Amino acid sequence: MLQQVAILGSTGSIGTQALKIIQQFPDRFSVCALATGSNITLLEEQIRNFKPEIVSVFNEDQAVTLRRRVADLPVKVLTGAKGLVELSAWPGVDVVIVAVVGFSGVMPTLSAIRAGKKVALANKETLVVAGEIVMAEARRHNTVILPIDSEHSAIFQCFHAGGSGELKRVILTASGGPFLGKKREELAAVTPEQALRHPNWRMGPRISIDSATLMNKGFEVIEACRLFALETSQVQVVIHPESIVHSMVEFIDGSIVAQLGLPDMLLPIQYALSYPQRWPNPFPRFDWDRNHTLHFYPAAKGEYPCLDLAYQALQVGGTLPAVLNGADEIAVRSFLEGRITLMQIPALLAEVMSRHEVIQHPSLEDIVEADCWARKETERII
Amino acid sequence: MLQQVAILGSTGSIGTQALKIIQQFPDRFSVCALATGSNITLLEEQIRNFKPEIVSVFNEDQAVTLRRRVADLPVKVLTGAKGLVELSAWPGVDVVIVAVVGFSGVMPTLSAIRAGKKVALANKETLVVAGEIVMAEARRHNTVILPIDSEHSAIFQCFHAGGSGELKRVILTASGGPFLGKKREELAAVTPEQALRHPNWRMGPRISIDSATLMNKGFEVIEACRLFALETSQVQVVIHPESIVHSMVEFIDGSIVAQLGLPDMLLPIQYALSYPQRWPNPFPRFDWDRNHTLHFYPAAKGEYPCLDLAYQALQVGGTLPAVLNGADEIAVRSFLEGRITLMQIPALLAEVMSRHEVIQHPSLEDIVEADCWARKETERII
Repeated sequence: MLQQVAILGSTGSIGTQALKIIQQFPDRFSVCALATGSNITLLEEQIRNFKPEIVSVFNEDQAVTLRRRVADLPVKVLTGAKGLVELSAWPGVDVVIVAVVGFSGVMPTLSAIRAGKKVALANKETLVVAGEIVMAEARRHNTVILPIDSEHSAIFQCFHAGGSGELKRVILTASGGPFLGKKREELAAVTPEQALRHPNWRMGPRISIDSATLMNKGFEVIEACRLFALETSQVQVVIHPESIVHSMVEFIDGSIVAQLGLPDMLLPIQYALSYPQRWPNPFPRFDWDRNHTLHFYPAAKGEYPCLDLAYQALQVGGTLPAVLNGADEIAVRSFLEGRITLMQIPALLAEVMSRHEVIQHPSLEDIVEADCWARKETERII
Repeated sequence: MLQQVAILGSTGSIGTQALKIIQQFPDRFSVCALATGSNITLLEEQIRNFKPEIVSVFNEDQAVTLRRRVADLPVKVLTGAKGLVELSAWPGVDVVIVAVVGFSGVMPTLSAIRAGKKVALANKETLVVAGEIVMAEARRHNTVILPIDSEHSAIFQCFHAGGSGELKRVILTASGGPFLGKKREELAAVTPEQALRHPNWRMGPRISIDSATLMNKGFEVIEACRLFALETSQVQVVIHPESIVHSMVEFIDGSIVAQLGLPDMLLPIQYALSYPQRWPNPFPRFDWDRNHTLHFYPAAKGEYPCLDLAYQALQVGGTLPAVLNGADEIAVRSFLEGRITLMQIPALLAEVMSRHEVIQHPSLEDIVEADCWARKETERII
């Protein structure tokens, strides 16, 4: 059966890779809907290539321009936050790939869940800031959320080696970023350019800095807990600089099952689309004909303050994870602008978190408000 | 439901560990039958402890002695090869753990399969020499054979992360034994005492020597192919000196799933008994709070002649694996007696193999004959 796919964020890194995979399987997938923030040049190219029924451009002016440019085609062009939500619930769509960045991923994800779509999720904020709401909604609608993220995809794959109720804990691997093993004094002088150079993965600026501080791993801990309904104590972070073991699961009998391979997003994207099956592909393979050395170090408490903050936000819950995420976005931007040092990020986040009055079992409005408050408060402190 | 267990080889290393596990789960298992070669002192102790209905002692004189010693108990004492076969098909038995050493494991395994028992297999010869016959019989009777072996248990566990037909290949890890990295000149002077010292596992003398020559890994390649219905080309051996990753599976999409943990036989034994479930236990756990370094080296062709011989025996099939196994048993014994050097083992095996006239699709009788011939021929050459 041909599955109709919607890609939210089709011009980004995950979106373009998803299209590359879809091209490999023309009898399995057809592109029904695409959405971008403002890159209408690439979107137009994708429209002419994949012939979607409907697209959405977040930026209204760009939407108008695009509408004119593709006037020769029967494609419908939506715009704004409303466009994304409408597109995720579009009747013909079977699978929604949520690969937009930031808070704007939350509403379309909920919209897709409520419309009974299969959701392949690459948007961090959805689970970090609104994980409880989103997962409750997914349970209500019996929707499987398939993670597009090498770590969570690994965990999801490893789960299948055991039955329900047999999970002991999850071992989330972290590359440790570009500054692994560096002393605090050395870190104080780190420039944005150095921080942007991740050893194993090519990523956007915010996630690169979040990898350097391990804040990104902290968010992944929160995501794992939400996605797989785990207790905070069931997720352990282990530093693994080679990024070959993407994560592991320990079962109640002590057996550990790991998923490994090259650091390449194509596989987790494909798995989210092919699940519960696996399909052959021409992607590069891990080469067992060469020597390999894999290192694993515990991420000791106190050593990675941003990671500790994520555990704290997770433990407290409510609006605190949203505050941490909002504050971090501002803190990272300030670091990239040279206004604060890398080492000041965790102190800043801790300060904002400590000033927040947590609302338990928040509504989406509470979360949006907490996020706004956190951004303003962070700016104020800087 | 209380499962009635039979343990063939209850006084050996696997057998005693299996009893240790059974003791942990008194509401899941009851010991119905036990069998030993000749260690009646330990068997008597086990009888008084576990109260089996029936036992078997291979040695007839010892069986007579035991019968006298346990005359106060309602236990039935069988003897000889016939005793093992009768015991494996005993009406009350649900699961048969085949942990006897050598050729004598084959007939009881077939007997258990034909009687519709679940089989937990720790006997190497069953699959190495008679794998085609045994697996055909298992398919006919719809019996799952559960491997008790860290590598095959690992593969079996990893399989569950994919569907049928989605397996690309199996990556079988090998510690490399005590002489990993040693040059051929150094190996020439190796003493039996040095060869018996395995770095990660405590095992019997033959399997220790077979680990040093990688002959054991070769037999495991044959077992894996038989057990999981793989082509020769689907099993790759990778040297992994730490014995933490017990083996891996690569799926058609390039995803690799590995099973890892401490080198401890308790887990694979328990998994064979608990499958398809997993049960908690107090066994020692792999400690992620410490640093770990794991190495992986390709087992290049030509580097491990015994491994190459196993691939050759597997490729040719028929009676050749039985010849390799029989010849190896004599070769190892001769090495332990100081009659040949470690380096002479592969040359000797190759010579015996080359002299054998292979029978394809052999009967059990053909296999027994090939085994006898190989042993005699090996002795003759020495």
